[in-house]
Amino acid sequence: MAPVAPRSGDAIFANVERVNAELFTLTYGAIVRQLLTDLEEVEEVNKQLDQMGYNIGIRLIDEFLAKSNISRCIDFKETAEVIAKVGLKMFLGVTATVGNWNAEGTTCSLILEDNPLVDFVELPDTCQGLFYCNILSGVIRGALEMVSMKTEVTWIRDMLRGDDAFELQLKLLKQVPEEYPYKDDE
Amino acid sequence: MAPVAPRSGDAIFANVERVNAELFTLTYGAIVRQLLTDLEEVEEVNKQLDQMGYNIGIRLIDEFLAKSNISRCIDFKETAEVIAKVGLKMFLGVTATVGNWNAEGTTCSLILEDNPLVDFVELPDTCQGLFYCNILSGVIRGALEMVSMKTEVTWIRDMLRGDDAFELQLKLLKQVPEEYPYKDDE
Repeated sequence: MAPVAPRSGDAIFANVERVNAELFTLTYGAIVRQLLTDLEEVEEVNKQLDQMGYNIGIRLIDEFLAKSNISRCIDFKETAEVIAKVGLKMFLGVTATVGNWNAEGTTCSLILEDNPLVDFVELPDTCQGLFYCNILSGVIRGALEMVSMKTEVTWIRDMLRGDDAFELQLKLLKQVPEEYPYKDDE
Repeated sequence: MAPVAPRSGDAIFANVERVNAELFTLTYGAIVRQLLTDLEEVEEVNKQLDQMGYNIGIRLIDEFLAKSNISRCIDFKETAEVIAKVGLKMFLGVTATVGNWNAEGTTCSLILEDNPLVDFVELPDTCQGLFYCNILSGVIRGALEMVSMKTEVTWIRDMLRGDDAFELQLKLLKQVPEEYPYKDDE
């Protein structure tokens, strides 16, 4: 359907402007620390990180569509694959595996092979309950909303909480296919 | 003095792990917005950004020394050049020009040719007085303190305030040359 062949995450990532990953990681850590100081309640920090991510996601989708040549995904299944293989690669330089689909094809998981947000991070005991990477779930939720997919995005496994991987569950709540303004013939 | 030749900023930047610059820019914007909401006073936000930068700088210096093969700068003049040509390049992918030296060689300016922190940023009228990029001055201050240079780092020109460039003034307050633990023979 797309007029130009979609580009791979690797190809896009190689050509976009980038900054040092450690700077990004430390800057993100500084945000989380700041929120913990200002908001005190871990639950509030989770919400705030998610909201910040959402605000980023609704803007980042534009760059994603512009750079990836992906004009439209056929269904939620293709969308999940595109996030895992192109979106995450393009922005964070990592990819994910998609799995754990439910029978209806409305819920799946992204299992992250690497997560630059958590390099050097250890959570103190006082931060149990923190979803440190909640900004990422917010970004995906915001970006998907801009292409008319209302989703719920939650962390199922989190290595900072002792799990063996980072697993993000995507649940499609509602899809309004014809609402969004991107045309196939750009 | 160094056992291995120092590496150029370009060479290092090409080989470190990186993330998408737009993601970094939007994430940084989210921090600033968050601080403006939480702290209300612009002056407090300036202080907080500087402090966050300082906390990042005192950690980032380790990666800088490890990756750059720069073991020690002879004087403040050389230090300023290294920040401008290697440090900024390595972390943000940009370089700066060093100028406006005072007669004593203790004060100079870094004039930034490009500044990825401010892409897409416009300050509303309510944010006059905000030093949006204050995290960067904090990073430099923190990093220099770890190599025994106590400095004051302030924005002299700021394009978000209508100036024609970004100019960061570095003022050396105190230098304790033999205090730091890095050896020439690593």
